[in-house]
Amino acid sequence: MPPKPLDYELVNENVKKAQYAVRGELYLRATELQNEGKKIIFLNIGNPHALGQRPLTFPRQVVALCQASFLLDDPNVGLLFPADAISRAKHYLSMTSGGLGAYSDSRGLPGVRKEVAGIIERRDGYPSHPELICLTDDAGKAVMQILQTIIRGQGDGVLVPIPQYPLYSATIALFGGTLVPYYLEETANWGLDINEIRRSVSQARYKGITVRAMVIINPGNHTSQCLSEANLREVLRYSYQENLVLPGDEVYQQSIYQDERPFISAKKVLMDMGPPISKELRLVSFHTVSKGYWGECGQRGGYYELTNIPPETVDEIYKVASIYLSPNVPAQIFMGLMVNPPKPGDISYDQFVRESKGILESLRRRARLMTDGFNNCRNVVCNFSEGAMYSFPRIRLPPRAIEAAQQARKAPDVFYCLKLLEVTGISTVPGPGFGQKEGEFHLRATILPAEENMPAIMDSFKKFNDEFMDQYEDHRDLFKDVISSL
Amino acid sequence: MPPKPLDYELVNENVKKAQYAVRGELYLRATELQNEGKKIIFLNIGNPHALGQRPLTFPRQVVALCQASFLLDDPNVGLLFPADAISRAKHYLSMTSGGLGAYSDSRGLPGVRKEVAGIIERRDGYPSHPELICLTDDAGKAVMQILQTIIRGQGDGVLVPIPQYPLYSATIALFGGTLVPYYLEETANWGLDINEIRRSVSQARYKGITVRAMVIINPGNHTSQCLSEANLREVLRYSYQENLVLPGDEVYQQSIYQDERPFISAKKVLMDMGPPISKELRLVSFHTVSKGYWGECGQRGGYYELTNIPPETVDEIYKVASIYLSPNVPAQIFMGLMVNPPKPGDISYDQFVRESKGILESLRRRARLMTDGFNNCRNVVCNFSEGAMYSFPRIRLPPRAIEAAQQARKAPDVFYCLKLLEVTGISTVPGPGFGQKEGEFHLRATILPAEENMPAIMDSFKKFNDEFMDQYEDHRDLFKDVISSL
Repeated sequence: MPPKPLDYELVNENVKKAQYAVRGELYLRATELQNEGKKIIFLNIGNPHALGQRPLTFPRQVVALCQASFLLDDPNVGLLFPADAISRAKHYLSMTSGGLGAYSDSRGLPGVRKEVAGIIERRDGYPSHPELICLTDDAGKAVMQILQTIIRGQGDGVLVPIPQYPLYSATIALFGGTLVPYYLEETANWGLDINEIRRSVSQARYKGITVRAMVIINPGNHTSQCLSEANLREVLRYSYQENLVLPGDEVYQQSIYQDERPFISAKKVLMDMGPPISKELRLVSFHTVSKGYWGECGQRGGYYELTNIPPETVDEIYKVASIYLSPNVPAQIFMGLMVNPPKPGDISYDQFVRESKGILESLRRRARLMTDGFNNCRNVVCNFSEGAMYSFPRIRLPPRAIEAAQQARKAPDVFYCLKLLEVTGISTVPGPGFGQKEGEFHLRATILPAEENMPAIMDSFKKFNDEFMDQYEDHRDLFKDVISSL
Repeated sequence: MPPKPLDYELVNENVKKAQYAVRGELYLRATELQNEGKKIIFLNIGNPHALGQRPLTFPRQVVALCQASFLLDDPNVGLLFPADAISRAKHYLSMTSGGLGAYSDSRGLPGVRKEVAGIIERRDGYPSHPELICLTDDAGKAVMQILQTIIRGQGDGVLVPIPQYPLYSATIALFGGTLVPYYLEETANWGLDINEIRRSVSQARYKGITVRAMVIINPGNHTSQCLSEANLREVLRYSYQENLVLPGDEVYQQSIYQDERPFISAKKVLMDMGPPISKELRLVSFHTVSKGYWGECGQRGGYYELTNIPPETVDEIYKVASIYLSPNVPAQIFMGLMVNPPKPGDISYDQFVRESKGILESLRRRARLMTDGFNNCRNVVCNFSEGAMYSFPRIRLPPRAIEAAQQARKAPDVFYCLKLLEVTGISTVPGPGFGQKEGEFHLRATILPAEENMPAIMDSFKKFNDEFMDQYEDHRDLFKDVISSL
């Protein structure tokens, strides 16, 4: 019998090729174990509220009032909501054409886009235009919308940093393009090496691929490095020379855990460089309400800003946005609140600052606790998380562990992470989901568990790792290492 | 100079091909006029709250409490929220893993999926499985997810009813497939004629296209007819014989304005038919919180149910869902509330029934007012809106109006709708955006304006139409009509 539509044989090959490891084998096994009653510590997904981070009070008050807008006329509303939340709810409702239940403009509420443009101007010191800002159902959808516009087929390549956030590989596969990998340099705290990019582009061209775009992720997801201004300049100059569009994933710009290398936007660096590049390089910058001290992942809100994109292409991009009708409206309000939080003098200002500073300072301590915890383990080395919310330690697996993994038909780090999960309940994502150099092994863990639980989690990891290494490490191996290091 | 990425010449051709008329030329002109200070009556988009429909109180109370979950511990909460809203908020929060700010499972909260399965079972009298239900950011995204799985290239065809909801043509174009049109029969109240489908499939096959799927929309969007059980049986049998997947768009199932032909789901009809077809025909059914008396378009919530899809393909579909991470969580709660509204005896029951009945009964009266209003105009004929929320009158344009349109380089009905907009401020969507038979002209208007405004709107339309016909109708034309009818 010939196959029928939706038989596996007939499923769109691009769909089959797309991989999404963050919710892959490890996640499924963790869910199974949880259903069997085992306590699972989910370090696999950057999902702050699921790991106990409390939402900021003020934005939740405002959005709750926008939902229950009839409360604004209730004489008792002041008993539950502060006056500034009430006035902000009225402010945002006045931007809608029928409250949260009405579709907005496909690009999002004009009033919120204006507020977003305002904060970009203050951040960078350069103009930003509401007409070139599009609100979206989180940054992932925004990335998809832009890559769909760029990719026309297998011959179109997109440079993506490796290790990478698998949204990129999955999206490029879904749209039938070719991922062109450039490796970040682990020994330089996951720095971006322009020579490596050149090498990768040459190799792609040799294969007949036209490289169309270069994704940069700053701070790194999930390598957590902050790119320096000099590094960004190099990248922008290179993109300009090579006619590449630059999708700039900056969703972690508010999650910075050190003072030496603050976040600097690609747009600011570009504008600082002056013409002709500042007027010509095509940049699309992404942001979200899911990350930082907001962590409102479940609301699904984000935006992108278009810089130097030709007007007729802007129209095409917005046409695609119009097919999706409208991003969800409550999350648009969250975005408005994120770029326009309470100001000094507002009733809610002190509480807002206390809550947001509390989260950020704790994340900074947790980034340190986790890095130190991993570096304290045998055969584990880990760069400090300068920003974002992940730790990505390298695990030096002994040859006998690699053999055991091969026998179990698993990649060595998948094997290691599965054992870690079974023994400790710690759910991580092994390196192959993100890409890594041949013969290297990693895992990804979020730095998000509650601070008070962190020491116990790292102790549990250390205990597992020590026992694992004891089991698979051979004294002859150790001896060989000593010999070879002489 | 060679073109650069994101130059219009290099934009993905599928993106360029996609058209989305609902927010096209007419909408843009209406927005311009509005910005110039003209009062616009937006009948172009089915956006109930934008046209004054009030949200149902109970679901808004529950979701507001889920957002401001800290209120659940406030001793004053009972002053603003009824006890059943408070307990329902706790019920839904207990299903999440960190409230509305945490990603849910990519298929949606298991607890809500269980509630959805429950109502499908009660509706149809057949089992429904939560594991085969996937919550989505509204039905449009769901349709895209399924069509992306089916379409592999230009050789794959999808049958779509014409006049159609342009989401389908746009999505099929975006994914590079071929739309295979089948025309609904206007003179049979937009009935679905199986011979017309056969004709269309033969023609597509002759062109080398393999037809993979047949979209049915019931109640029709925007032709507003309810398909009869006999008609549905015919369609299901045909799909089965021809090995077609059946995407069943049933988003208007709660918007029915007559008693003679109630909504009946494709799944129920399929199950009633018994094996082998009930165990083999591949059906995907879509629903949403945007329509009906809910009208919560801005929240972006929906679901699809998979019937008879092979398990390994279900895995592929869910893998794509996992790339999108999670549908927005507040809208998942709305979906839970929609399928599980207040019950008799609940504090909020009476108010909920009063509000929802009030909206539905008014919509029923408005469907009648609008149909009669159009049929009361010269050269306008209009089927009654049995369900959904649109009116789609046919306009018989006089030859001189067609000539004038040609001189203005507009399609005749675009010309007519633009004049209507300029003169009356009534914003509609002309027929070409939906497809229509050669030489026929239509417009689409929602039945959603506030009931008290409806008579004035229809009077204004009639006045415009009469003057338009006076201007372009030639007495010789009328004379010719009389002659030819003899």
